[in-house]
Amino acid sequence: MKKIITFGEVMMRLSTPNHARFEQSGNFNATFGGGEANVSISLSHFGLRTLHVTRFPDNPIGYAATDFLRSNKVDVGSIQYGGDRMGLYFLETGSSVRPSKIIYDRKNSSFDHIQPGTIDWETILEDASWFHWTGITPAISKGAADCCKEAIDIAHKKGITVSGDLNYRKNLWQYGKTPKEVMPELISKCDVLVASPWDAETIMGIKSNYPELEENEVKIYQEIIKQFPQVKKIISTHRITVSSNHNLLSGQLFNGNSIIKSKQYEINPIVDRIGGGDAFVAGYIYGDLILKNDQNAIEFAVASSVLKHTIEGDANISKVDEVESLINGNNGKLKR
Amino acid sequence: MKKIITFGEVMMRLSTPNHARFEQSGNFNATFGGGEANVSISLSHFGLRTLHVTRFPDNPIGYAATDFLRSNKVDVGSIQYGGDRMGLYFLETGSSVRPSKIIYDRKNSSFDHIQPGTIDWETILEDASWFHWTGITPAISKGAADCCKEAIDIAHKKGITVSGDLNYRKNLWQYGKTPKEVMPELISKCDVLVASPWDAETIMGIKSNYPELEENEVKIYQEIIKQFPQVKKIISTHRITVSSNHNLLSGQLFNGNSIIKSKQYEINPIVDRIGGGDAFVAGYIYGDLILKNDQNAIEFAVASSVLKHTIEGDANISKVDEVESLINGNNGKLKR
Amino acid sequence: MKKIITFGEVMMRLSTPNHARFEQSGNFNATFGGGEANVSISLSHFGLRTLHVTRFPDNPIGYAATDFLRSNKVDVGSIQYGGDRMGLYFLETGSSVRPSKIIYDRKNSSFDHIQPGTIDWETILEDASWFHWTGITPAISKGAADCCKEAIDIAHKKGITVSGDLNYRKNLWQYGKTPKEVMPELISKCDVLVASPWDAETIMGIKSNYPELEENEVKIYQEIIKQFPQVKKIISTHRITVSSNHNLLSGQLFNGNSIIKSKQYEINPIVDRIGGGDAFVAGYIYGDLILKNDQNAIEFAVASSVLKHTIEGDANISKVDEVESLINGNNGKLKR
Amino acid sequence: MKKIITFGEVMMRLSTPNHARFEQSGNFNATFGGGEANVSISLSHFGLRTLHVTRFPDNPIGYAATDFLRSNKVDVGSIQYGGDRMGLYFLETGSSVRPSKIIYDRKNSSFDHIQPGTIDWETILEDASWFHWTGITPAISKGAADCCKEAIDIAHKKGITVSGDLNYRKNLWQYGKTPKEVMPELISKCDVLVASPWDAETIMGIKSNYPELEENEVKIYQEIIKQFPQVKKIISTHRITVSSNHNLLSGQLFNGNSIIKSKQYEINPIVDRIGGGDAFVAGYIYGDLILKNDQNAIEFAVASSVLKHTIEGDANISKVDEVESLINGNNGKLKR
Amino acid sequence: MKKIITFGEVMMRLSTPNHARFEQSGNFNATFGGGEANVSISLSHFGLRTLHVTRFPDNPIGYAATDFLRSNKVDVGSIQYGGDRMGLYFLETGSSVRPSKIIYDRKNSSFDHIQPGTIDWETILEDASWFHWTGITPAISKGAADCCKEAIDIAHKKGITVSGDLNYRKNLWQYGKTPKEVMPELISKCDVLVASPWDAETIMGIKSNYPELEENEVKIYQEIIKQFPQVKKIISTHRITVSSNHNLLSGQLFNGNSIIKSKQYEINPIVDRIGGGDAFVAGYIYGDLILKNDQNAIEFAVASSVLKHTIEGDANISKVDEVESLINGNNGKLKR
Amino acid sequence: MKKIITFGEVMMRLSTPNHARFEQSGNFNATFGGGEANVSISLSHFGLRTLHVTRFPDNPIGYAATDFLRSNKVDVGSIQYGGDRMGLYFLETGSSVRPSKIIYDRKNSSFDHIQPGTIDWETILEDASWFHWTGITPAISKGAADCCKEAIDIAHKKGITVSGDLNYRKNLWQYGKTPKEVMPELISKCDVLVASPWDAETIMGIKSNYPELEENEVKIYQEIIKQFPQVKKIISTHRITVSSNHNLLSGQLFNGNSIIKSKQYEINPIVDRIGGGDAFVAGYIYGDLILKNDQNAIEFAVASSVLKHTIEGDANISKVDEVESLINGNNGKLKR
Repeated sequence: MKKIITFGEVMMRLSTPNHARFEQSGNFNATFGGGEANVSISLSHFGLRTLHVTRFPDNPIGYAATDFLRSNKVDVGSIQYGGDRMGLYFLETGSSVRPSKIIYDRKNSSFDHIQPGTIDWETILEDASWFHWTGITPAISKGAADCCKEAIDIAHKKGITVSGDLNYRKNLWQYGKTPKEVMPELISKCDVLVASPWDAETIMGIKSNYPELEENEVKIYQEIIKQFPQVKKIISTHRITVSSNHNLLSGQLFNGNSIIKSKQYEINPIVDRIGGGDAFVAGYIYGDLILKNDQNAIEFAVASSVLKHTIEGDANISKVDEVESLINGNNGKLKR
Repeated sequence: MKKIITFGEVMMRLSTPNHARFEQSGNFNATFGGGEANVSISLSHFGLRTLHVTRFPDNPIGYAATDFLRSNKVDVGSIQYGGDRMGLYFLETGSSVRPSKIIYDRKNSSFDHIQPGTIDWETILEDASWFHWTGITPAISKGAADCCKEAIDIAHKKGITVSGDLNYRKNLWQYGKTPKEVMPELISKCDVLVASPWDAETIMGIKSNYPELEENEVKIYQEIIKQFPQVKKIISTHRITVSSNHNLLSGQLFNGNSIIKSKQYEINPIVDRIGGGDAFVAGYIYGDLILKNDQNAIEFAVASSVLKHTIEGDANISKVDEVESLINGNNGKLKR
Repeated sequence: MKKIITFGEVMMRLSTPNHARFEQSGNFNATFGGGEANVSISLSHFGLRTLHVTRFPDNPIGYAATDFLRSNKVDVGSIQYGGDRMGLYFLETGSSVRPSKIIYDRKNSSFDHIQPGTIDWETILEDASWFHWTGITPAISKGAADCCKEAIDIAHKKGITVSGDLNYRKNLWQYGKTPKEVMPELISKCDVLVASPWDAETIMGIKSNYPELEENEVKIYQEIIKQFPQVKKIISTHRITVSSNHNLLSGQLFNGNSIIKSKQYEINPIVDRIGGGDAFVAGYIYGDLILKNDQNAIEFAVASSVLKHTIEGDANISKVDEVESLINGNNGKLKR
Repeated sequence: MKKIITFGEVMMRLSTPNHARFEQSGNFNATFGGGEANVSISLSHFGLRTLHVTRFPDNPIGYAATDFLRSNKVDVGSIQYGGDRMGLYFLETGSSVRPSKIIYDRKNSSFDHIQPGTIDWETILEDASWFHWTGITPAISKGAADCCKEAIDIAHKKGITVSGDLNYRKNLWQYGKTPKEVMPELISKCDVLVASPWDAETIMGIKSNYPELEENEVKIYQEIIKQFPQVKKIISTHRITVSSNHNLLSGQLFNGNSIIKSKQYEINPIVDRIGGGDAFVAGYIYGDLILKNDQNAIEFAVASSVLKHTIEGDANISKVDEVESLINGNNGKLKR
Repeated sequence: MKKIITFGEVMMRLSTPNHARFEQSGNFNATFGGGEANVSISLSHFGLRTLHVTRFPDNPIGYAATDFLRSNKVDVGSIQYGGDRMGLYFLETGSSVRPSKIIYDRKNSSFDHIQPGTIDWETILEDASWFHWTGITPAISKGAADCCKEAIDIAHKKGITVSGDLNYRKNLWQYGKTPKEVMPELISKCDVLVASPWDAETIMGIKSNYPELEENEVKIYQEIIKQFPQVKKIISTHRITVSSNHNLLSGQLFNGNSIIKSKQYEINPIVDRIGGGDAFVAGYIYGDLILKNDQNAIEFAVASSVLKHTIEGDANISKVDEVESLINGNNGKLKR
Repeated sequence: MKKIITFGEVMMRLSTPNHARFEQSGNFNATFGGGEANVSISLSHFGLRTLHVTRFPDNPIGYAATDFLRSNKVDVGSIQYGGDRMGLYFLETGSSVRPSKIIYDRKNSSFDHIQPGTIDWETILEDASWFHWTGITPAISKGAADCCKEAIDIAHKKGITVSGDLNYRKNLWQYGKTPKEVMPELISKCDVLVASPWDAETIMGIKSNYPELEENEVKIYQEIIKQFPQVKKIISTHRITVSSNHNLLSGQLFNGNSIIKSKQYEINPIVDRIGGGDAFVAGYIYGDLILKNDQNAIEFAVASSVLKHTIEGDANISKVDEVESLINGNNGKLKR
């Protein structure tokens, strides 16, 4: 089977152990993660071939990040080395009514300074069946946005499925461009969008009252597809935050006509909420490629996301049989 | 008071800390456990005298296991040393919808190669009031099954109460015998059985439709006692798995006529689910010997099991006053 | 703004990690706490100036305790050094139905032997707007009770608001005096009491049937204010213990006429329950000084206490914006 | 073989991990130790039967201490329970030029308040071949000194070998008696003394110039034996402190006529220096009982002490074959 | 460049942290290692392409071992999955005069039951420049020995350099064959031997007096080459064990005529001695392939081994520039 | 006594535990350090009043850094908050022949963007007796260099002693200026320089052959004082690196006429080498202010530095009595 290609920044994540607050912690757990790489890692654990394109500093921290991807079975052969530093973020893990907190320190990272024309997309995408990007990448820097556009254009030209997770983060987008200037062109060549009705308004300027009503939701999605006719599927998760460690999660898929909803799962306690959306996307890609059925795909996507919440680290490392077991109703019975 | 004697394998348990998955863990917590030894440990913490018979390798790992039993007040004077290795198992602790996983590595352990005729049961059982075994032991090897039979025969001859926890594990029983060939003879000299209706079918070939209906349950238990007239009590737990860390637990006792049920407890979160059944048995033995009342005994048994779920490790190390406090409704109020 | 002054013992706390029982633990987490110092620490984190008066041994353990207060922004300039030892307590953290346990080892501590006449209360209270004490201090020793009385008298004379948390602990009070002999005189100069109806009976001898009925509660509070006319506000928390790690918490304030109740919060799981009451008091003091409105103050107090339950250690280190966010309904949503 | 009996306080030891200073440490490693119990533990690991007499608080900390002794194969059947608290000490582990530091917190411990007449020495010593005490015990309190005298008198009367480690600690001896008032009577019934020439002056008032010269050493030892004719052997270690983690260690024995010296060992790095003297005594007792030759006994004693320095915790847990391997020149070669 | 192929068992290694003894340790550090895989890992870190052939159980422990190799850049594409269990060994890390101890538990491992004819050596060795095996493999089982022979024969036939590390372990060789029956045929097709004069006697039956004299050493090596004319180079390390953590290490190479010696290095402290010999072999292979000069190769080999001793885990993960820096005399100066 | 003022960046330091390599570490120890703040921290522990001026991000990481300084008794009242991020560095701790490695990630830190005119030096220096800076600050950015110049000018004008540690780091100085353009003006108002002969050449352009010969050293120092007549004392350490964990350290002071040398100390093992130079400077400042004698001051300085090497973290937290004990020859003897 051909590879799934992902592109985006990977950061070192430094999280306080045992729910400690930043001021209390004399040490940090360290791992690596990034929205797009998380998708590749999860898909590798589902048994698919993946390759992640990114840029790391040419120092032991960059090599450690590479080793992390490699140990998760992601092809690291197209990683670029250079620049000053690994982007990183600090994570304080909340509990109960106390929310988790993230402090980003990603400016001037190696990836931030990535330049178009330096990645051999033609070769990379030759052996690919899917290309996935997120709205974080064009929000980082002009260079990152340009590289993302290169990839989307070539993938589209080659007939590869392109998925984009809009993933709007208002703290990014500080290099002089707004999402509305940059995103529509990228979206226009996408086959699959990960987007909520709110994203439609923020990023695409599609207005709607009461997007939480299903009838309005459908209208918004129809409007998106009208504006971006290449888009065939729009997927999203629906999360109810009972508390920091107790969430309800479901997913849905708009197939151009109607909304297909998944089961809702209760997750309590959450071991690690970061990367839940990426695990959803990975689950959907697996479902679309292998299960070839919208209902099955969205069920696989949301179950994949749910399992991610029980695993420390940014990425889902569940296997296909574990996702299926959850879909089939095994909610935590000991396996001897 | 005379001793309670238990017989069975003790394994090293290597568990991933902090709910890590096997692939994620650079270290393991190490302790020791085994279904029968867990009963002795718990009874020692209830203030009774206990002795455990097993076989360990004659090396520092075997000595460490001995030290573990000794520190838990179990008489280790009848442990046999020899053979190649300590059996062990790996435990990945789940969370929420993710189940815990166990990988056994117990073949060719010192206990696996234990031989009949090498244990001085006459002497060991001289100072005993109770002998407890489980269905795991005859499932390991012919030698283990034979040793178990020796002990049951001599205990029965001496008029000692014999309890057996059927505990069917299909992954064991690989030495050429089936449970139905081996178990009935062992069960025939038991005074107390730990058994669910399902065990009756699997191990004893007693058929029944809808064993979950109480009226059918009674019929099955009556049939058991008909076939094995030495059996006076049949006890079992009833567990509802809401999630990996959230269970509801109750217990019941069949006294030959009717089923006596305990209160149901909610356990959330579960610190460690392993050994919950053994803590139930230990609680019952304490209840039978000391409280001398079926209702009290089954309440003590299930409360003992519930407390075990809040304690790391295979065995319950709660004290009698703690079990009683739980029975009396203290559900976790801070004690200053 | 003038300082809030607190006075009382600070102990080293040695807690078992990961819910281990005392017998299981080969190491302890170490921090420092004490009912009154916890109030100062919390108020410092709310941005107010605080000073804590206590007595530590003149050795590295005493210096480490000083460093702990200093790092939490509490003025340590009036700490006395001398005596033999740091008081300490051991904490076994429960889970689910298993309660946490505390073993105190505070006798003959440096604070236990504190002597009246050795603290320059005139100077310390010169720059103060509030003085807070608890019923633990007069329960420790005659010297401690006398020092507490000195401080209350001088604070009262200077017109500083005095608050007292009755906090009855029957295991203390072993130096030959009873609460009823000592407490009334101290209470008589208090402006704010932290007290439940049960405290009224135990400490002040005010009898009442069914104190849990709101109408009776009001009567008890009215009787307190009748006997102690300096008291203007009586506050308390109301806790429902679902399990060791799952509590419901609300608070109330009696303003001389009626009871004002706060919202009720669900806390699950509790990271650390110790110091919940102190965080409530700190929240109230902040509310009274800054928010100047009884309803707002009691809401701030209980939200402060709720957040404390999510933080390891004796003291709340939440910031004002975090408390306000909780009051405004953010129940744990991730902040990126 | 009959038991070796030891008597003395056992404290909880709280040590900073990884050479952290007291101010730096957010957690402590916890274990238990005491000069006399360390001897019993070590002798148990050499395969001899031992019993330790002490007094613990009747709470989980006391039970944990009991479990610690039990897991080290020491008979705990004669331990007394009562009193307020476990004595404890804090240990900051030095490195290189920075010395380790100990802060004792042992006043008013359960053992401190032990009373004569409460220990059934007649029964305890019935099955004994050796009784060992140290100068720490009579230094703690009058009660402890009196209990020690009881034991020595009865042991002597029964013809049991009595050994005393003078072990002068000037920070103790605060209950109104001086060593010179108490010790001579205890020493007078000892068969074996652990004493350096300096102890002779401090404790027994035997003056000597230049005790470091071997000829003067012999004179001092001869004077001791003249004053205390029951004493047959005087043993001691000789330590050269190159740095906190680098020591040279040898031992010697005076047999009434001459000094027999052991090999000198280099220890670098020292894992844990505490209890080095106790391991020496345990080694000597083993040597005297089993090897029955002064030169062999002193070699075994010092090698036992050297191995202790490589083991975390107060007590030596080396086995006989390990001590012998060191004596035979194996200085650390990997054993596969 | 073509790949280096290695073949052999990989075990899980469970080591006690902080020099704890087996009886003291409540947890183990877990990693993976094996003599031949260690060579591949080290060569990967030197920038060469490597592939390791082995057999793992088809369970998460086997997958974790695979991830470990993959993260170290070793091609895992030819690993076989099957059998019952991962072989493992326990490691107690010594200190100073206390030796480290290893307890093997490798019988009946997946690799133990490997069968000839199941590995596609023709394909694996097609893209290879070097094949390396050790004497551990033919010592494990007949199947392992036969697989090893297959590989050597095909490698030899294809003209690939073959190196064998004789590595005699008397505790292995328990399947009915002796080294003298099995090894000569394997050695006969080797181009490079890792062997000491003592190996010559034990494995090949070549007698010699005083092998430690250089003149006799040369004679033994000449005799080896006479009997096995395919052998062109014989290399070995020379280790002086000052203590468990303090060794002196040098290496030498016999080129058919004379012995070329490396510098001697002092290593103190040793972080981890396991795998020192494998790092030496990896260094030599790098040296032979890249540096193409005997003196340079042996210097690189021993410096590689020395660096291994400073790194936790079985395998050297130093980079070429680090080895070169050590050869050039940088003995530990901080790099900013 | 008046305060000592220091000015410079403080970074978060993330170090691998237990000598792990960057690739091996799943967690990092976290602390804070910076050349100038380290001096203030050490002086605070010597009992002097200190204040550190720096700039931190206005987020919890910045607050944690503030807490760190505060807990070390440094006045944090003049810290500026703003900018994007905390500078940080990663530390891999070497062992034996493997050097420690530092990876800096300090660009675009809050301090990097500090601006002249924003610090109220007049007020800060009003209550000061000493101002200390290092060559790292003017190397970071033009803003930092300008702020440093402001401080030196005002300190000099007020007659405060100014010390500068030249501390050349070639990896810094990337903002367009060279040391020779910036440093001379700053040095010209210094009373005390920390400088080696090599610094003289690199930073001041003072040429010399064979600076390691004492006669040439004197010439260089004389030339420095000729060019910078305000300089009265030049101090430096002399380090011999036996290995990563084994150093020899001494210090010297040029008083305008001759070189005064300290004792040389052996440090083995080194717990943490970072900040050794800063501890030397702090020791010298203490010595100059309190001991008022060049020989005593340089002895105190080097002993302070030696003790730092035995303490984890960037700063010395030894007390005066500990430094004096080392000077008096106590090389690590246990203190009970």
